[in-house]
Parts: sequence; C-alpha cells; structure tokens
Amino acid sequence: MSSYSPIGPVVGIVGAGQLARMSQPPAIALGLELRVLANSPEESAARVIVDTRIGDYRDLDDLREFAKGCDVITFDHEHVPTDHIRALTAAGHAVHPGAEALVHAQDKAVMRERLTAIGVPCPAWARVSSPEQVAAFAEEHGWPVVLKAVRGGYDGRGVWVCRSPEEVVEAFATGVELLAEAFVPFERELAVLVARSPHGQGVSYPVVETVQRDGICVEVVAPAQGLDQEDAAQAQRIGLKIAHELGVTGLLAVELFDTPNGFVVNELAMRPHNSGHWTIEGSTTSQFEQHLRAVLDLPLGTPKMTAQVVVMANLLGGDEPDLFKRYEHVLAHDPGIKLHFYGKEVRPGRKIGHVTALGSNLDEVRARARHAAVYLTTGEYT
Amino acid sequence: MSSYSPIGPVVGIVGAGQLARMSQPPAIALGLELRVLANSPEESAARVIVDTRIGDYRDLDDLREFAKGCDVITFDHEHVPTDHIRALTAAGHAVHPGAEALVHAQDKAVMRERLTAIGVPCPAWARVSSPEQVAAFAEEHGWPVVLKAVRGGYDGRGVWVCRSPEEVVEAFATGVELLAEAFVPFERELAVLVARSPHGQGVSYPVVETVQRDGICVEVVAPAQGLDQEDAAQAQRIGLKIAHELGVTGLLAVELFDTPNGFVVNELAMRPHNSGHWTIEGSTTSQFEQHLRAVLDLPLGTPKMTAQVVVMANLLGGDEPDLFKRYEHVLAHDPGIKLHFYGKEVRPGRKIGHVTALGSNLDEVRARARHAAVYLTTGEYT
Repeated sequence: MSSYSPIGPVVGIVGAGQLARMSQPPAIALGLELRVLANSPEESAARVIVDTRIGDYRDLDDLREFAKGCDVITFDHEHVPTDHIRALTAAGHAVHPGAEALVHAQDKAVMRERLTAIGVPCPAWARVSSPEQVAAFAEEHGWPVVLKAVRGGYDGRGVWVCRSPEEVVEAFATGVELLAEAFVPFERELAVLVARSPHGQGVSYPVVETVQRDGICVEVVAPAQGLDQEDAAQAQRIGLKIAHELGVTGLLAVELFDTPNGFVVNELAMRPHNSGHWTIEGSTTSQFEQHLRAVLDLPLGTPKMTAQVVVMANLLGGDEPDLFKRYEHVLAHDPGIKLHFYGKEVRPGRKIGHVTALGSNLDEVRARARHAAVYLTTGEYT
Repeated sequence: MSSYSPIGPVVGIVGAGQLARMSQPPAIALGLELRVLANSPEESAARVIVDTRIGDYRDLDDLREFAKGCDVITFDHEHVPTDHIRALTAAGHAVHPGAEALVHAQDKAVMRERLTAIGVPCPAWARVSSPEQVAAFAEEHGWPVVLKAVRGGYDGRGVWVCRSPEEVVEAFATGVELLAEAFVPFERELAVLVARSPHGQGVSYPVVETVQRDGICVEVVAPAQGLDQEDAAQAQRIGLKIAHELGVTGLLAVELFDTPNGFVVNELAMRPHNSGHWTIEGSTTSQFEQHLRAVLDLPLGTPKMTAQVVVMANLLGGDEPDLFKRYEHVLAHDPGIKLHFYGKEVRPGRKIGHVTALGSNLDEVRARARHAAVYLTTGEYT
C-alpha cells in the first residue's frame, strides 16, 4: 500500500463480518483506508475491502503482522484475547477500545462487578461453579435463574434460562465458566448506543426498542415509543456513564430491560451493534461512521434522526439460497425501503441482512419493514 | 470469483473514478458485486473495490476480457468508443446505457441533431469546419459564439467562448472537430437528473441549481430555489422525454440554461453526475443506488428528498496535499456536515471531493457547505 497516497489514515478492523463490511461506506466517504483481518476472502467484509489480510485473531503473531502500518486498530467482534490486545498496545499500537475497557464486553463477570461498583442497576448476580451454588442463588432470588457463559456467548448462545434444578445441569454439562443472574421480569427490551472518543467527547443516540426472538434481535424501533423524556434521558445517562467510567473508546451499546422499577442493564457491546443498524439511513451520522470518527479521535457527528420513526428488521436466513430474485417484488412494492445484504451464504437462522423503513407513522413504517423482511426471507406475502 | 457465492449479480463499471467509487456503498448495501476497469490500482474506485481489473477502455480486447462474467456493464465516464460498446452488445453482453443512447452523450453534434428532431429546446447550433463558417454563424446569431469539441470535452475543457474571429482561430488550432452554438444569455444553470430502466420505468429527481466557476461545477442547491411548480415539472418532463426518446438506460443528467424564454438544454451525461452528489444524503435513493437499480432493471427507488434544502459544494484541490488534518476543525465546527473524499492525489483545481449540508434554511445550509469547502481546500476560515 505504500505506493498509494491515501488522504486519510489506515483503520485496521480485526474481524471481517457484517460490522466491518458496513464500515466501508463511511470509510469510502471520509477517504479512510480500511484493512480487515479475515478468516477467509469469502467473509462478508473481505468481499468489499481491498486490503484484506487473512489470519487468526487468536494468534498474536497474526495480530502483530496485521497491525503494522495501521494508524488505529479496532474490532468487528469481542473475541480477541484480552492479553493480545494488551500486547499490541504495549508495542505502541493505538487500539480502540482498549483492553481495559473491552474486557467488560468480553467477560460478563467482570462487567457485572464493575457496573455494580459504579452503581449501575444490574440483575442480582453471582459467579457459580456448581449446580448447588445455583440452587442456593435460586433460594434467594427465585426461579427461573439465567445462567450465562462468562465468555464467548452471542445472539442467545451461551444463555440458559433455567426453570428448575434439572435444567441447570445441562448448562454445566457444557463445561464453560458460568454466571447466574436473577430473571428480570421486564416489560420490553431497550438499547442505548453511545459513542465516546479518546479525548472524552460523548454522544448518545435516541433510545430504541429491540424485539428479540429466541435470543436474536429481529426488530428495532427508533425511537422507543411511549418512553417519557426523563426516562429516555436517564437511559442515555446510563450509557454515557458506563462509557466514561469504563474508559470506552468507540461505540458502546447497552442493552437494557425496561421494568416497572426502572432500567436494568442486560448486556454491553463495544462496537457497532445490531440495535444501531437503523442509523445508516435514520441518523445524520450512522453508527459505523461514528465508530470510525471515535476511534480516530475525530469530533463526533450529530446523532440526530432523519425521520420521526425508523424500523429495522433483521433478515434471518431461510431455505432459499438466492435472495436476489426476491428484490424485484420488495423494491416495486415499496420504493422507499432500504435493503442491506451482507454477502453471506444463506443458512437457516443466520443473520444475512436487514431492511430499514423510515417515516412518520409507526404502524405503517413497521408494516413496511416487516413486509420486506418476511418476503425476502420466506417468499411469503403478508 | 467463482469460489464466492455472491447473493447478487456482478456489475462491471468501465472506469474507476469517483463515480465508480461512490457506487460501492450502495452496491455493498444491496449485496451486488462491483467490478471496475481501472488504469491503475491507485485510481479512486480501485482503492475500494476488490474486483479491480487493470486495462485500457479504448482496447476492445481489454473490454472483452473485463466483460466476462459480468451480468451487466455500465460506465464511469463517456469515453469508451461507441463501436466497442456495439461489439460488446453483439457478443451478448448487457450494456447500459447502450451504444445507441450513449452516443448522444459522446458526440455533441449527434446530440444536437437528435434533440432538435424531437423538439427539445437547444441553442442555435451548427457543425463548423472553418473559421469562415463560424463567422457566417456569428453573422446570423451574433457574438459570442460558443465553440465545443464534438467529442471528449468535460469540466470546461473543449469549450471556447469566442467573442471575436481571432479567438475562433485558437479553437481551430487544436485540430478537433467543432460545433458552434449561439451563446445563451441565461439567468442561471439548472440540472435535472432522471433514471430510466430497460423496462421503461422512469423517475426524476427534483430540479437543482448548479453554480459553475471556470466551467467547473462548484455548488449545487437542491431543490432550485424560486422555481415555480409548473416550471420544475416542465424541466422534469424534458429530462424524462430525452431519456425515453433516446432509449437511455441508467441515469441521465440534463444540464439546462434557465432563460427568460424558458429552458434550453446545454449538455447531457448518461451516468451519475456531479449535480446529483447531493442525493447521497439528500434523497431516500442516492443517484448511485438508482443507477445500479436501473442498469439491473430493478424497480427504481423514490427520489424523495430527506431534507427541505440540500447544498453540495465541490472540493477543488489547492496547495495542501494532506487534507485529513483539516477534518478536525470542520467536523467540530459542524457535527452535521457530510464529507466525501475521493482518495485522489490533491492537484490544484482537481475535483478531489465534496461536502454536503442538509437543513431547512437555504442561507444557513449554504453557509455551512461553503465554510467546510473553503476550509478544507484553503485552510481559511470564512
């Protein structure tokens, strides 16, 4: 790349999934050079980013080689070993988010300890190493008990909602380190996405409602409806406080349970997040542009919405491997619908894309997003 | 590429300038695979499109090789020889726009003949092959006379506004084939951008005002202010009529002179156009997405604006080769400004990027766009 004369810096993204892929449009606009570390040239982002390096994010040598010439390093996922990130930083590389922040998105026990310490509302929780300890936890907090893999879970994997001691045994059979959490009787799930830059600037996007099915987000409504201004501000304050206290640089997504007694933090992610895909068209500054600006320590962009209501629906793979032939109907049916495909092979249940609808009437906007998502994934008219 | 399993078709773009580059974001979203034919891997689009082929667009063999495996072929510029395009079509390739349409954007004499024949208002014009013929033309239509290279001109190159017979000699000294046009005493310049698909669907974007300096567009205001609804519709009808009559597939940009006696067509372009860059943020469907949809014969997207007023200002290279260090000020000054850099080396006067501002008050929006453009290119505060 040295024969090039890029205008902007080189941003290295470890991982080449759809989050890295969707970072390429704002990088193109801003004249930044993206580099990704991919497992194969067929990965989602590798198909659209010229400077793709093939390597293993669990291998420090691969990471060191990848980092050479990058002005900043960031992540498509949270699975890079924390010690490797520390090693890159020690070698003089700028890594955002840094290891000391990212560990809270990698290790749920560390996250719970820290959030509890800074006074952020969490479910009752405990580290557990035996079914007996879970039974003792249930004695105090009642059933069901939610068991979570301390490391490595995502999209509902690594989570067991146990309604009886028998179900607890199943989770322990996996052999992974577990955390017990009290089941939160929530009314709905919300998410707040904030950005924080190394020099400390922070912005918060409007709070959204996320709809999950089998632990996978299927729909996001922005802004969350029926949330009064004070509650929305409170959720945003929680997001900004966590970002500040944990020293997050880049994006932070905070998943919240909305309960009669207030908000309870469910999960954290330190990268662009599914609950923020609506910002591509729905905000003046998309989450992907915002993350690039934040990790480069550039001034952050306004999170202002471009429409009154935005609904994003995820596309989960069905039986049909060729979705392109379904474009004609959805694009003709709705000239305003926005389609996003991730260039991934279709597999049942896999997140392969999303659609976004914008407008002023929630029912109408949601119906448009759902129509497109259902047709694209199943071929059925709704 | 055969080991990939792309969801969408392969769109081949001949040429790898900023128009091909700005086509990559919507291609990423729609899951299309772009391929570009570039002169070098350092060209604007080559830096951001994985499937870049190096070759000469004037060489039919290179074009044939490039076309293999493309589902459709389109263009970043109008300089591909018409006969080569015919040869590709004869070989069974889908090429949009086709040679019979594109020739009107390649050959100004053919364009004038055709527009005159279908009753579209043009300046008085004549093919001229000697200064004497120009003098005779001036006798009838007065000075100044505008001489234009019949083929190959762009951004003010290949245009001579001659106020006397002496200046005519200069134009003839270049040895290129010339066209004489009466100078149109216009009040301002407008542009209308339309899209037409192979199956005949057409859409028109709002009419915009374009501000030129030394023959180069420096600013675009969308929608054109003070244009009554009937006149705007008339301009859009002119655009759609030309697209229909000429059989354009893809985008058609029509540059218009706004005169006291109505609209007069100045130039045509059959591709995304500088006067449409505002649509990236300013319309639900950007011109780049629209062009891809049109050449793939997919239903067209709505051209609806996302804000009341949008101003796009071009960035013309100045003395400073590294523009990135100027980002901090413009992004901090205006969290809503949108920057676009083309990854091209900075050279004085070269189009190296653009900025876009959106809002509701023209003066304010224009001031924001100008502030960013002036600072980025000169380092001066305005």
